[in-house]
Formats: sequence, C-alpha cells, structure tokens
Amino acid sequence: MRILFLGDTVGRSGREAAAAALPDLRAALRIDLAIVNAENASHGFGLAPDMAAALFAAGADVITLGNHAWDRREIIPYIAATPRLLRPLNFPPGTPGQGSTVVSLADGRRALVMNAMGRLFMDPLDCPFRGTQEMLARHRLGTTVHAIVCDFHAEATSEKMAYAHAFDGQMSLVVGTHTHVPTADHQVLPGGTAFQSDAGMCGDYDSVIGMAKEGAGARFWRKMPGERLAPAEGPATVCGLFVETDDASGLARRVEPVRLGGRLSQMMPA
Amino acid sequence: MRILFLGDTVGRSGREAAAAALPDLRAALRIDLAIVNAENASHGFGLAPDMAAALFAAGADVITLGNHAWDRREIIPYIAATPRLLRPLNFPPGTPGQGSTVVSLADGRRALVMNAMGRLFMDPLDCPFRGTQEMLARHRLGTTVHAIVCDFHAEATSEKMAYAHAFDGQMSLVVGTHTHVPTADHQVLPGGTAFQSDAGMCGDYDSVIGMAKEGAGARFWRKMPGERLAPAEGPATVCGLFVETDDASGLARRVEPVRLGGRLSQMMPA
Amino acid sequence: MRILFLGDTVGRSGREAAAAALPDLRAALRIDLAIVNAENASHGFGLAPDMAAALFAAGADVITLGNHAWDRREIIPYIAATPRLLRPLNFPPGTPGQGSTVVSLADGRRALVMNAMGRLFMDPLDCPFRGTQEMLARHRLGTTVHAIVCDFHAEATSEKMAYAHAFDGQMSLVVGTHTHVPTADHQVLPGGTAFQSDAGMCGDYDSVIGMAKEGAGARFWRKMPGERLAPAEGPATVCGLFVETDDASGLARRVEPVRLGGRLSQMMPA
Amino acid sequence: MRILFLGDTVGRSGREAAAAALPDLRAALRIDLAIVNAENASHGFGLAPDMAAALFAAGADVITLGNHAWDRREIIPYIAATPRLLRPLNFPPGTPGQGSTVVSLADGRRALVMNAMGRLFMDPLDCPFRGTQEMLARHRLGTTVHAIVCDFHAEATSEKMAYAHAFDGQMSLVVGTHTHVPTADHQVLPGGTAFQSDAGMCGDYDSVIGMAKEGAGARFWRKMPGERLAPAEGPATVCGLFVETDDASGLARRVEPVRLGGRLSQMMPA
Ligand SMILES: [Fe+2]
Ligand SMILES: [Fe+2]
Ligand SMILES: [Fe+2]
Ligand SMILES: [Fe+2]
Ligand SMILES: [Fe+2]
Ligand SMILES: [Fe+2]
Ligand SMILES: [Fe+2]
Ligand SMILES: [Fe+2]
Repeated sequence: MRILFLGDTVGRSGREAAAAALPDLRAALRIDLAIVNAENASHGFGLAPDMAAALFAAGADVITLGNHAWDRREIIPYIAATPRLLRPLNFPPGTPGQGSTVVSLADGRRALVMNAMGRLFMDPLDCPFRGTQEMLARHRLGTTVHAIVCDFHAEATSEKMAYAHAFDGQMSLVVGTHTHVPTADHQVLPGGTAFQSDAGMCGDYDSVIGMAKEGAGARFWRKMPGERLAPAEGPATVCGLFVETDDASGLARRVEPVRLGGRLSQMMPA
Repeated sequence: MRILFLGDTVGRSGREAAAAALPDLRAALRIDLAIVNAENASHGFGLAPDMAAALFAAGADVITLGNHAWDRREIIPYIAATPRLLRPLNFPPGTPGQGSTVVSLADGRRALVMNAMGRLFMDPLDCPFRGTQEMLARHRLGTTVHAIVCDFHAEATSEKMAYAHAFDGQMSLVVGTHTHVPTADHQVLPGGTAFQSDAGMCGDYDSVIGMAKEGAGARFWRKMPGERLAPAEGPATVCGLFVETDDASGLARRVEPVRLGGRLSQMMPA
Repeated sequence: MRILFLGDTVGRSGREAAAAALPDLRAALRIDLAIVNAENASHGFGLAPDMAAALFAAGADVITLGNHAWDRREIIPYIAATPRLLRPLNFPPGTPGQGSTVVSLADGRRALVMNAMGRLFMDPLDCPFRGTQEMLARHRLGTTVHAIVCDFHAEATSEKMAYAHAFDGQMSLVVGTHTHVPTADHQVLPGGTAFQSDAGMCGDYDSVIGMAKEGAGARFWRKMPGERLAPAEGPATVCGLFVETDDASGLARRVEPVRLGGRLSQMMPA
Repeated sequence: MRILFLGDTVGRSGREAAAAALPDLRAALRIDLAIVNAENASHGFGLAPDMAAALFAAGADVITLGNHAWDRREIIPYIAATPRLLRPLNFPPGTPGQGSTVVSLADGRRALVMNAMGRLFMDPLDCPFRGTQEMLARHRLGTTVHAIVCDFHAEATSEKMAYAHAFDGQMSLVVGTHTHVPTADHQVLPGGTAFQSDAGMCGDYDSVIGMAKEGAGARFWRKMPGERLAPAEGPATVCGLFVETDDASGLARRVEPVRLGGRLSQMMPA
C-alpha cells in the first residue's frame, strides 16, 4: 500500500497549500491512502467543518487532530457525523468523535488509521500506550487489515520514540505530529514499522511554528498577554512523508520525506 | 568561515563516533571552527573531563552543554579551567564556568560561540533572550568578530524559532540541541542567520533518544522507578550541520545537514 | 465513627512523633479508625517495611502513600503482602499493592479507605476521578460500609476541591496530602462529606516542607544539583484531623484539625 | 506596627466582602497598614480600575497582584499611575507598574511593601529570590523602614518556605497567596519574620478555588474546553492574617489568622 501523511496544516496558507498539493501528490506517488493532520487549520486553532470538507474533497481519506481538536466548537457535531475525522483515542470515555477508523480502499484492501496523544509536557489524557494496545488487540496487521497507521501527536521526542518501539512490528507507520517541525530521522525500525518523530507542519516556516513571528516571539520576552496570535501568511512548505508497505505483512518497505514549496529544502520520493 | 556543529553526543557509542568523525569532517569540509555538544557523553548523563579532553583532541574547538551540564561533578573544577567548554549563559550569576567564548583561528579570524538554554518545559533559568541580547551588545558580527554561533539548548520548537528570529541578522548560526532528533528545517532566515531547530544527537537511533529502548520505554507504561537507564550501544549516527559564512558580514551563505553512519539517512554537504 | 487522619510523616522526627502521638490520640479522642500517610517516612523519601510495622504497632489501622511510594524498593514485596498499606489507586494496572481496603472494626462496623493521586503538576497517572467513581460503584456509604475515607494526594488546591465536590455525599471524608502544610479550610461540604485541602505533615516546620532548610533552599537560588537533601531534625508538629461521622448515613457530623507539638499553633478537638 | 493582610479577593462575592470587612477590621484591630491581594477581583480574572479604587476607598493601603495581573487590560494605564497598586517585582524590565512601594503612615512610620512571584509550576519570570535580595539591599528593616512585608504569590509550598527562610530576619512578614486556601502554619520564624504559606482567598469556599464548582470541576473529568468559568456567588469568607511588629527591630511579635463570614471556621485575633 502506498501511503501519504501530511502534518499539521496551519492557517489559510497551510490548509490551502495542502489542499492544492493533495491531488498532485496522489497522482505522482500513486497514493492509496492519504491522511492529513488539520488541528491548526482554522487561523492556527482548531478546524472548522467547511475546512475539513475541503481537505476531504482535495483527496484526504482521513483527517487527524490533536490538542487543538476542540478550539472551534462547531467541530463537535461535525465529528460525531464524520467517521473519517479522528481525534486522539485517549481522550476520556464520552468524548465526541472517535480515535480510529478502518478505511476500505476501492480495491478492497483495508487500513486502520489511529490518532493518539502523548502526555509528557501535555494534558494528562488516558494512557496512549494502553489505549493503543487495546486497539491493536482488535485489529491485526496483515490479517484483518493490510495497513495500520498512527498519528501520535506529542511534544517529547522520548515519548514518540518509546511509542514507536512499543508497537514496532504491529503497525505500518508511526508518525509524530505537534511540534510543527519536520524531523530527519525517518527510518524503518527493526520490527518493520516506519517511523518519523514529526511530520512537520504544512505552513509558512518564516514564523514561530506557523504563527506570525512578531507576536509569537514577544511572548518569550514579555510575560504579559500580548496581541492575539495570527498565522503567518507567507508561502507554505507542505511537509509529510510517503510510506510503501508490503500488503502481505503490512510492514513498511520504505519511508521517505515529502517537502514541497516554501522555504525548506525540497524532497520528493523517487 | 566554514563551521561544523555536532549535536548531543550520547554515551560511548555517540562520543566515540563523534571523535572518530571529527578529523575526517574537518578535512573533507575544510572546517575552520568545530563545535560539539557533549552534555550526554558520560553514559547519557553529563561529561567527564577525560571525555572532554578526547573531543578537544579529536578536533573540537568548543564543547557546549545543557541541562545535563552538572551530572558529573568532576566537571566543576574542569570547566573553571577550560574556557572552551561552555555551559548555558543563563545560569544564575555565580555558576561555575562560562556561557560564551571567543575563538581565534590560526589565520586571525575570530568567532564568538555561545550556549544558552530555553525555559519552556525546562528549569527556570534566567531569561535566555535578554542574556543573549546582553552578549550581543558586547560583540558585533562582522566588526569585532567574524562569526557568532549559538547552541540554543531547548525543548520547544516555538522557543527555538522565536529565539532564532529574535537574533536573525545578528548571528551566523542558531542551532538547537536537546531533543536528540535532527530536524529537516535548516534554512537561512531572512536576516541572514542560519538556523536548524535541532542538530540531532550523535548516538544510536535504535533507542529512546539514545538510551536503551526497553528501560526507557517502560517508564511510559509503568509509573514506578525502573532499572537504571543505560545508553544504547548500537552504531551511532553522527548528526550535525555545516555552515558557510561570509567573512565580511558574518552572515550565512548556506547551511547543510550532516548525518553519517548508523540508521539515519546519510547526508554530506557537497 | 470516630476517625483520625495524620498527614505525611517526614523523616525520623516526623515518624517518631506520629508513632508517639497515636496511642494518646486514639485514647483521648476514642478513635475507631486511624490512618497515617507515610510516603516520606524514610529520610524524606519513601517508607521502609520496619517503619510501616512501627506505625501499625503504634495504632495506625491503615497507611497511605503518594508519589514517593516507591522510593524505597523494599516496599514492593512488603506492600504486596500488606493489604492495609495503600498506594494511590490510579497507578496503572499491574502496579504492586492496592489502592483501597475495607477495614472491619472490632465492633463489626466497616470502613472503606482509599488513596488516590492528583495529576495537575504531577505524574500523569490514570484518571483519579474515574478511578474513584469505579471504586464507589462497588461500595455504598451507609449500606455496605459505615464510612468511606480518601487520602487524595495532590499538589493543586483546584484539583483537591474539585475532587471533594465530585464525591460530596458519597464519602465521609476527603483529605488532601502532599503539600506538607496544614490548611485551615476544614468544613463539612453541603452534601455531608468532611473536607480539608491538606492535612499537613508530621514533621519539623522550621524547614522546607520537612527537609533541612539550607540545602532545600539553595535549589531555588542555584540551578545546579546541590548536596543531598536531608530531613530537618527539630521537634515535629503532628498534623492531621479528626472526623466524627453518623453511622447510619456515613456522613460527617464534624471535622476538627489536630496539631500537636513543634512550632505550629496547637489544636486538639474537644 | 499593626498590619492586616487579606488574600486573593475572588469575584463580586469576595471583593465586596473584603471591602465591607476592611473598615471594621481596621478599627477592631487598630490597623496601621492594610494590604489586599486583588488579582481575581474581576469575575475571577484580573482587576478593573474601579474595583481597585473601591478597595482603596474601603481602607486598603496597598493592593497586590499575581499571575492574573494583566487579565483586564484597563489595568495597564491605571497601574502606571497608581504607585500603591503592585504587580510582582520579578516581571521582566519594561513591564508596566512596579513591584514595591514605601508607604508613609500618618504618624511618620514607613513600611516597604513588596509583591513577588514564584516560578515552580508557574511562568518563568526573573528569579524572585535575587529580585528580593536586590530590593532588600536598598531598604533596611528597623533603619530606613519600620516594616517590610512581601506578598509572595506562588504555587508550591516548598518555594514559599524556602523564600521565607531566605529572608528570615530581614522582613516583618512573608505571606503566600495564589492557592486560594488559608494555611494553618502561621508562625514567627527563628529570625523574627512572620510567615504563613497562604493567606487564603476572600471568596466563597463552596467552590473550586472561588469558581462555581460545576464548571470548574468538569475540567478534571473531561479534557475539552467547557463553558466559561464564573465565580461562585455564595457568601465569602474573608481570609487573611494580622501581624504585630516591634517598631525598633521591625520584626514580628505575633501573627494570627483572620477568617470572617462564610463557611470556614472563624478566627479573630484577640
Ligand atoms: Fe498540537
Ligand atoms: Fe499542531
Ligand atoms: Fe538536554
Ligand atoms: Fe542532550
Ligand atoms: Fe507527595
Ligand atoms: Fe509527602
Ligand atoms: Fe494567582
Ligand atoms: Fe489568585
């Protein structure tokens, strides 16, 4: 299976660049399954239903979220009616929406997509490790599903690497999100799971994690609330990765970074 | 000026790989100034004087540290006597050692090297932004020194990007350390300062940020103290970056990642 | 039922004072059930089995713990064999020991004693609110047990007050521990549950939360590891509270602070 | 000198109770100097100028603030023009307002009042210990001023106790604020400084630190933003303390808690 993952789309610049890139990337890389994290699509904070619809229309099969999931309140009824929009699975029971979904491709292959959230330097949700373990007890890679992908939304590299090793061999891909910076540590782990600590954002990299640099920077000098943060509006770099899996085992054959447009060095898998 | 920076060397695997790579990199890239972060050289925690001496002997001009600076107590008298071993400049007054040094190259060119530490998700040191500003009031890029480099040791990508933009145009290079994962966001900022959020570690990437994955991973499942952490002992990837500056302005012409050995994708500047 | 609760015993001074006071307090207040938090009994860090045995021998019916539960590793086999030694119930499944116990008094009355831990500014354990709710689904105040007491070990007053209100009317007493300072907010909440944000420590109050003030204070000035912390050795104030409940409803009739010895103002219920 | 300090006034219930109690307390205790923390006066978040004016009119000589200092933006021009309204002294240089003031009593005696903020579990301001030390280098107890009082606004009891011991003998009173719960550890420290870890709030104690308990409690169960928090509106307990100092030395002779109205046990110094 050929899988594309794009990291946190930030503001208008990021979400429009991701939507514009999706059809081309799907075609160029012959993508079977495309996943986009969109927790910052709405002016940096949350996701509005029409923005989700635009990303689905552009070719996203699944949209994932993170700690900003609920910043736009209109998402609550929308997520309840939209199984392919995921929020982290380790929110407490009773939280709207769901943390995983099984996608059936046109050719009949099936993929489990999950979203989980780390706890180090973040809100104390339920344990993401146990929550993932429970999910993997219900789906088995290479048997009930052909691929398993998790967007692990977390701050600390230690928690991300620990998570990936914990499930190495049981998933096709563990990809981190949340830091808004792509990492260069993409690898297939010893057990066959592809991993990259962070996919990076789809957004303007002449910024402070996608937000206009003057306002966002002032917060580190002054300890008073400043002006409202706004997304940077320069050209976005679309950041993510491409994974090719073996359909029999569900494990990864290769993982390659994708970086298109904007200020960062460009990467396109061969 | 041609500058090499290598990120946090972790344990025996990391420090020996860094020491082995330094002479070759110096020669291949015709390096004028080499800097290595070594806060995790000693079994993952701190730096012993003999390890510092080995890195200097291998070709490091300056060694930087971070939150693990004091894990090995023998470093206290050693750092007092070793001006080219730096600890973050924003430790409180009275802290042993120093946070910056001016290196004179054989050809007479001079470079200011600094080490500062972020505060988001970290210990509340003095303000690194004001501390840096004070340092830059005493040295001026392209006038009193030909290059200025800062190892900004921090957890959060937001603080790293805010720091780099704050001093864009006043330094040759701002490079982050501490997360032990190389980022793929190297760029020359609009003002001319080279930047990469994190240099990555020199260590074994089949691990949890350089530590053996079983023990380090268990901490996320169990909430009891486990066995003592030990560094992973597999082959290290030497991670860092190369910057070429303009000697008149002191600003960066280009920045390129360096990744050699071990599991990560290999990068060597042309 | 007449209940005595004593807060975190710190070091030799605190644990000996608590042990000395227990027989007198049991007699003077005609106590039916005595509970002592002992997470700092061993030099400030953890609890050794012989210290637990001494507190049981002095009259403690139940001993509770907190974030320091595992500092002395010998406690692991001991807690497995000692049902009246509790650790917080919201440690992950598989953690040694248990988080609650039912005590049968000589006269046949029964009391459920629980220990739970907060998460704000603390380690992300499982949700203490849901864990408590599950426990209360198995025991019903005034029906299956005559009293229910919880030692809620937490840092933040907001979490402590939220917890007490959440279970107001379902428990006899919610008492906070961990800050090592007695609070003066003892009250019977509207639903009938007695509450005090923190019981205070049994320890020397000429100290930094029970530890010798020079070493513990230096940590706020210097940001380097200092000498090993040691408990303050001056006379302890035994701090806690007394609750009288109605045996039919299990709810509290009154709650009164107890403070004996040492530097703090003395309080002994009439 | 006879000093009254009242803790964080929360919302309408708290600020009106504090304003109503001030004249009576000034008269009954023959108060020379009255200080009120008002960081939560405005619906729980910040302080509006008219509320500050009402507290000054009711008899407050000095008003202190804390982490909520800037929640109401109108305070910025007002604090610049109001020397007796203090914000923590360890905000960075350039912050509006000031962190200390010298009050001259009608009889000519002078008192230095300070406000500082802790950093443990709080925002990383400048070091409050060094900031206080610098302030005390400019004023000397029993020489240039007859009394020195600090409202140390902090979360952690360890930082509060460390702070009080650090300046024991150099101040008349160190009183903590911020937790909104009065502590029962009032004492004159060995060097002569009166201390209480927290003054407690002026607010409704049938609440979660002054806020209506349903909304504030839900945040610990659900990890989604809920309805906007609102202050509890029941009768307030006015909480604080009374200190009598020796005018020659400036040190404390005694410290006594004050608690009036509402749900908590009542305390009025003899
Ligand atoms: Fe996020
Ligand atoms: Fe994000
Ligand atoms: Fe570090
Ligand atoms: Fe490091
Ligand atoms: Fe504790
Ligand atoms: Fe404790
Ligand atoms: Fe506060
Ligand atoms: Fe407050």
